[in-house]
Amino acid sequence: MNATTPATTPVSRTQAGTRARTMKAVVKAAAAPGVEIRDVPVPVPGAGELLLKVLRAGVCGTDLHIYTWDRWSQGRIKPPVTLGHEFVGEIVELGAGVTEFKVGERVACESHIVDGHCIACRTGNGHVCENTRILGVDVNGGFAEYVAVPATNGWRVPPNIPIEVQGIMEPLGNAVHTAFAGDLSACRIAVTGCGPIGLFAVGVARAAGAAQVVASDVAPYRLELARKMKADAVIDVSKEPFVERVMELTGGRGLDGVLEMSGNPQAVRDGLAALRNGGRLSLLGIPKEPFELDWTRLFIFKGITLHGIIGRRMYQTWYQMDNLLRSGRLDVTPAITHIMPMERFDDAIQLLRSGNAGKVVLVPWGQQA
Amino acid sequence: MNATTPATTPVSRTQAGTRARTMKAVVKAAAAPGVEIRDVPVPVPGAGELLLKVLRAGVCGTDLHIYTWDRWSQGRIKPPVTLGHEFVGEIVELGAGVTEFKVGERVACESHIVDGHCIACRTGNGHVCENTRILGVDVNGGFAEYVAVPATNGWRVPPNIPIEVQGIMEPLGNAVHTAFAGDLSACRIAVTGCGPIGLFAVGVARAAGAAQVVASDVAPYRLELARKMKADAVIDVSKEPFVERVMELTGGRGLDGVLEMSGNPQAVRDGLAALRNGGRLSLLGIPKEPFELDWTRLFIFKGITLHGIIGRRMYQTWYQMDNLLRSGRLDVTPAITHIMPMERFDDAIQLLRSGNAGKVVLVPWGQQA
Amino acid sequence: MNATTPATTPVSRTQAGTRARTMKAVVKAAAAPGVEIRDVPVPVPGAGELLLKVLRAGVCGTDLHIYTWDRWSQGRIKPPVTLGHEFVGEIVELGAGVTEFKVGERVACESHIVDGHCIACRTGNGHVCENTRILGVDVNGGFAEYVAVPATNGWRVPPNIPIEVQGIMEPLGNAVHTAFAGDLSACRIAVTGCGPIGLFAVGVARAAGAAQVVASDVAPYRLELARKMKADAVIDVSKEPFVERVMELTGGRGLDGVLEMSGNPQAVRDGLAALRNGGRLSLLGIPKEPFELDWTRLFIFKGITLHGIIGRRMYQTWYQMDNLLRSGRLDVTPAITHIMPMERFDDAIQLLRSGNAGKVVLVPWGQQA
Amino acid sequence: MNATTPATTPVSRTQAGTRARTMKAVVKAAAAPGVEIRDVPVPVPGAGELLLKVLRAGVCGTDLHIYTWDRWSQGRIKPPVTLGHEFVGEIVELGAGVTEFKVGERVACESHIVDGHCIACRTGNGHVCENTRILGVDVNGGFAEYVAVPATNGWRVPPNIPIEVQGIMEPLGNAVHTAFAGDLSACRIAVTGCGPIGLFAVGVARAAGAAQVVASDVAPYRLELARKMKADAVIDVSKEPFVERVMELTGGRGLDGVLEMSGNPQAVRDGLAALRNGGRLSLLGIPKEPFELDWTRLFIFKGITLHGIIGRRMYQTWYQMDNLLRSGRLDVTPAITHIMPMERFDDAIQLLRSGNAGKVVLVPWGQQA
Repeated sequence: MNATTPATTPVSRTQAGTRARTMKAVVKAAAAPGVEIRDVPVPVPGAGELLLKVLRAGVCGTDLHIYTWDRWSQGRIKPPVTLGHEFVGEIVELGAGVTEFKVGERVACESHIVDGHCIACRTGNGHVCENTRILGVDVNGGFAEYVAVPATNGWRVPPNIPIEVQGIMEPLGNAVHTAFAGDLSACRIAVTGCGPIGLFAVGVARAAGAAQVVASDVAPYRLELARKMKADAVIDVSKEPFVERVMELTGGRGLDGVLEMSGNPQAVRDGLAALRNGGRLSLLGIPKEPFELDWTRLFIFKGITLHGIIGRRMYQTWYQMDNLLRSGRLDVTPAITHIMPMERFDDAIQLLRSGNAGKVVLVPWGQQA
Repeated sequence: MNATTPATTPVSRTQAGTRARTMKAVVKAAAAPGVEIRDVPVPVPGAGELLLKVLRAGVCGTDLHIYTWDRWSQGRIKPPVTLGHEFVGEIVELGAGVTEFKVGERVACESHIVDGHCIACRTGNGHVCENTRILGVDVNGGFAEYVAVPATNGWRVPPNIPIEVQGIMEPLGNAVHTAFAGDLSACRIAVTGCGPIGLFAVGVARAAGAAQVVASDVAPYRLELARKMKADAVIDVSKEPFVERVMELTGGRGLDGVLEMSGNPQAVRDGLAALRNGGRLSLLGIPKEPFELDWTRLFIFKGITLHGIIGRRMYQTWYQMDNLLRSGRLDVTPAITHIMPMERFDDAIQLLRSGNAGKVVLVPWGQQA
Repeated sequence: MNATTPATTPVSRTQAGTRARTMKAVVKAAAAPGVEIRDVPVPVPGAGELLLKVLRAGVCGTDLHIYTWDRWSQGRIKPPVTLGHEFVGEIVELGAGVTEFKVGERVACESHIVDGHCIACRTGNGHVCENTRILGVDVNGGFAEYVAVPATNGWRVPPNIPIEVQGIMEPLGNAVHTAFAGDLSACRIAVTGCGPIGLFAVGVARAAGAAQVVASDVAPYRLELARKMKADAVIDVSKEPFVERVMELTGGRGLDGVLEMSGNPQAVRDGLAALRNGGRLSLLGIPKEPFELDWTRLFIFKGITLHGIIGRRMYQTWYQMDNLLRSGRLDVTPAITHIMPMERFDDAIQLLRSGNAGKVVLVPWGQQA
Repeated sequence: MNATTPATTPVSRTQAGTRARTMKAVVKAAAAPGVEIRDVPVPVPGAGELLLKVLRAGVCGTDLHIYTWDRWSQGRIKPPVTLGHEFVGEIVELGAGVTEFKVGERVACESHIVDGHCIACRTGNGHVCENTRILGVDVNGGFAEYVAVPATNGWRVPPNIPIEVQGIMEPLGNAVHTAFAGDLSACRIAVTGCGPIGLFAVGVARAAGAAQVVASDVAPYRLELARKMKADAVIDVSKEPFVERVMELTGGRGLDGVLEMSGNPQAVRDGLAALRNGGRLSLLGIPKEPFELDWTRLFIFKGITLHGIIGRRMYQTWYQMDNLLRSGRLDVTPAITHIMPMERFDDAIQLLRSGNAGKVVLVPWGQQA
């Protein structure tokens, strides 16, 4: 099997014979904390699907929630399921009817599997499809040697970027979606929360032409990463008052936009307070629970626009991200702090819990880091 | 004095001699509940100002707050001040330098006096000027025989509409601004809260091409007015569940937009729940106090856009409103339920408190209703 | 076979046995003027397709071009092909894999068959797909007893509108797309050219909340139809100067938008001249040949926006149109002037050539008008 | 006189005594080719005006037209008038009523003096005011030792940029306006025509986050400057076919946007042909005469949006430009090729005619370059 296999060859049938039968995978095996590394069957690509040999996969806060088995996970996850929704792989087999890809191509993957016929999907808003299923959450994902995905979700990766970056285009797309939800170029922007997506957002805002990018967090480790992602200034909100610092940094004018990545209620309130009248705040960070807002003072009287952000525009966000990466304008490598074997998934989870990590990328069995 | 007086004549000086010296006015005289009807000096129009003989004036919920002397009023109002920020008048005198109007013209008035040089004002967003002063709140207003206003705030009224409607273009503009903050034409829209601005919003949404307009309130009196304003359906939320009714009315699809006019936290939550994914909710209604929201479920996961709305776009909203009124597409007379002498201001306040009123319009001393 | 056949039944195979083998169709049979009415095989729905029994079909200017065998047709059409790209039908058979429809449903049809994976398709702009094939142009269309179409192109028609209107949603969608390409509600709009799509556009602009709708043409017959579609004013440009009349009608302010439906160079120039500075002109009408414009004076110095319009937004336009029709806001029946047997296709063409027709709707063999 | 003079001091009267009576100026003295350098009275700032001591001024193609006395100039210019609409100066005197500036501040100047009360001005579109008068065209401009300008047109310059750049913010604003007329960030953009505004546009597109910036011209000298402004690629259209080269450079995808700066009909046609379907072309370049377009093929069938661009958004463009300059993201110094005494205005004109110049900046009498 090699990259020159023409796409029109009925590869699926031919290669099924040579395909491995079982593989290693990180499986949420039971309705309880933790995961198991198991031998499971290699998936068979259905009609319209790609079978990918996974090359790299990113660990996400959502994986941590599922590992911990929090309330959200308990309501959503139906074990057993293979985790992992951020990954890049090489196409090793094509399901029936797939013509737009060929074996050997390297693709990243949109993790939202959408129905294609609801009003959202039919009006260019597939990211809020009413029947979304998510890879690695609702169906088997990419923390494994192989994964089957709909061909329509595949994205040929820019060849000029490191394989680890190819592996985390999904969460990078979250940052791109949030950043592009409102005016960005020539604007004064804050990113509140410097977890991996926040760090990506700093890089995206810089690459996309924001005139000033301020990043905030409580962890010096993360603020240092934000600096490496080229934040013009960072604010340690455990030590400095956010609003006052922003006003200093913007010459009293306030922010044009806030990209909220923390889910922290105070970050939302401070972000609103630091916006100029008429500014926008785009929320991707997921609050742990409902929280209160002084709507009148912070939102209505200021004429603010708030965006709820989920997923990635399918596929406008991917085109934007691809352009930024392919051109070399955007480099997110400083935000990738750890690369480790997928076998050590438990360690990766501990690392995330420690807070002393940016994005953690896993290398599947049999791959060289 | 007549309409042919050329604008360049130094009318101000000439007519000052013939101008009455004192007039009746509804004055917030002291830092306490209530108002006084007093004799006060007729204002002298400054440079760039118009002196209007007030013809009609509308009573607003804000006037009720000031009358009651609630916390907001205590922090904002500096007695003595003549109340009244919704009115129409005839120009009786031009301040120095005014060339775009002439004596005898009938004008309504934008109530926000803005600085013209902040970033908001300089980018077409004067409605969120950082230095806004409001007629009848921060400076003397139109509950009087005469009022002086900046010429730049004057708007020649459509001649084809009743004088009472000319008198309430300011709050009608609030409804227009809210309605036009997002997609409207061919959309399924709910208006939550059928006070005067909500009633206006029903009419605006109909005239502006919304495909379905649903109105909600708890008062049968107001819902009946909403029907007269041509709501396609009304929901009495004291008796029926809002979200379920909306889903029935929209064939399960949900709303494209909500115009929130009540300031009621449950209306906001229900409005969000009844939106289709990707819809918008525009808030003009002012909540009494901070309130809590399940951001994740109602806002982020649905990809909603929220708009904080205040005032009127200066002056895009006025052009839109003028076009709708001048063409006859929009008729808001059913929402004007009471016309009474300004002398009976206390009665008007009681009427508003009763809830059994739409818009109440006042006729100044010496004017015929 | 009936409407209660569940969608999951493998109807395609079952019903193939009972399906008629041949049918009547209007076929472009040779690379020469004219058409033939022929017996052809009833199409077999492929995977993902619907087989429709055609109920009504509209005749379009494009059909006239193909009939006449003009230069465009010679370059595009590969005979033999069954014509007809505007139609409504009843589903009589489902191709393999179709689950979102069931037999017995009545559907109209988007005529653009798009590839689904080009950048346009993947960013909500399928109407400009780089690989568009058009029903009745590039593949067999609906001037026949039966037609096979991709299920994804099917649209359940509003049940409350006449069957003839159900039959012409495709060109009505052109009007909706053009109208919604820029600001519309509360705007002053002209429709230049009152062929069927122009007439539809007049109705759409009215229903969608335009404050003033002016229609122009050279044919009194068409201007009379424009009046029936509720144009506020009509201009016979063979007798009256367009720009001067518009200025009179708008009180000297000019138009906010022009919906150009004629393809006439002078209409474009006059439309630009009659726009206020900053207005928009959206061109759907196809000019016969390249033409000249005084770009500096009419376009650049006025800060105009021009939109090239083709097809319908897939499927935002359809949702908008459906909402307007389903709500009863939009009634386009006055624009449908002739209903005749499909057998008389040659007569329909002559009627179109005469100019004394709005939309002509055809009734297939075996259907009752 | 110094920068600490409080703005409320009636400086105008006080300083009039010490103000010089006459000054040198470049004057279009007669309805014929050429200019005169003359002694003229120093202007007296009227109410609401600033008197500036000119520090630097840019020469524009428009000045060349006026010098040459072409048809446009003959219809527009009423000699005598002092030329010059791009400049920076120091405030030396305040007209009556000016409170937002103080003596000693350094300001650049919006050259469009607008009426402030037409529909364009009142809806945030002052750049297409119906009654625009232009400094240095309709009223005396900045090719002089002093110039009086409306305070509302003044813009405090970023202090961190060279004085020559402060002097050419007006034409730089043209580039910013054009660039920001449509999507820019993460897009593939071409700039057609590398005169000074085209060169600026290359820099703006880069700073504002375009993913790829291609510049075209016929002059190697200008293409070399485009490279210095960080164009990713340049196309010499006298030697290479534009469309083919763009397709190569974009991997066959085509451009998202074209910023047309040449006024050349072929550049417009090529630009349209090189756009992806659904792209935008924004025209600032002024064609010498009307020209023909194949509207159907290049514009309608591709679903293109065309923007006519003039001036600068007042003052959104200035905020955007200020942010880009103040942050250091945008450096346009490579486009400024010549700095010379204003006294040598004739030489500057010859330089422009030669084509071997980017932006030429003039230094007034008594100033040190």
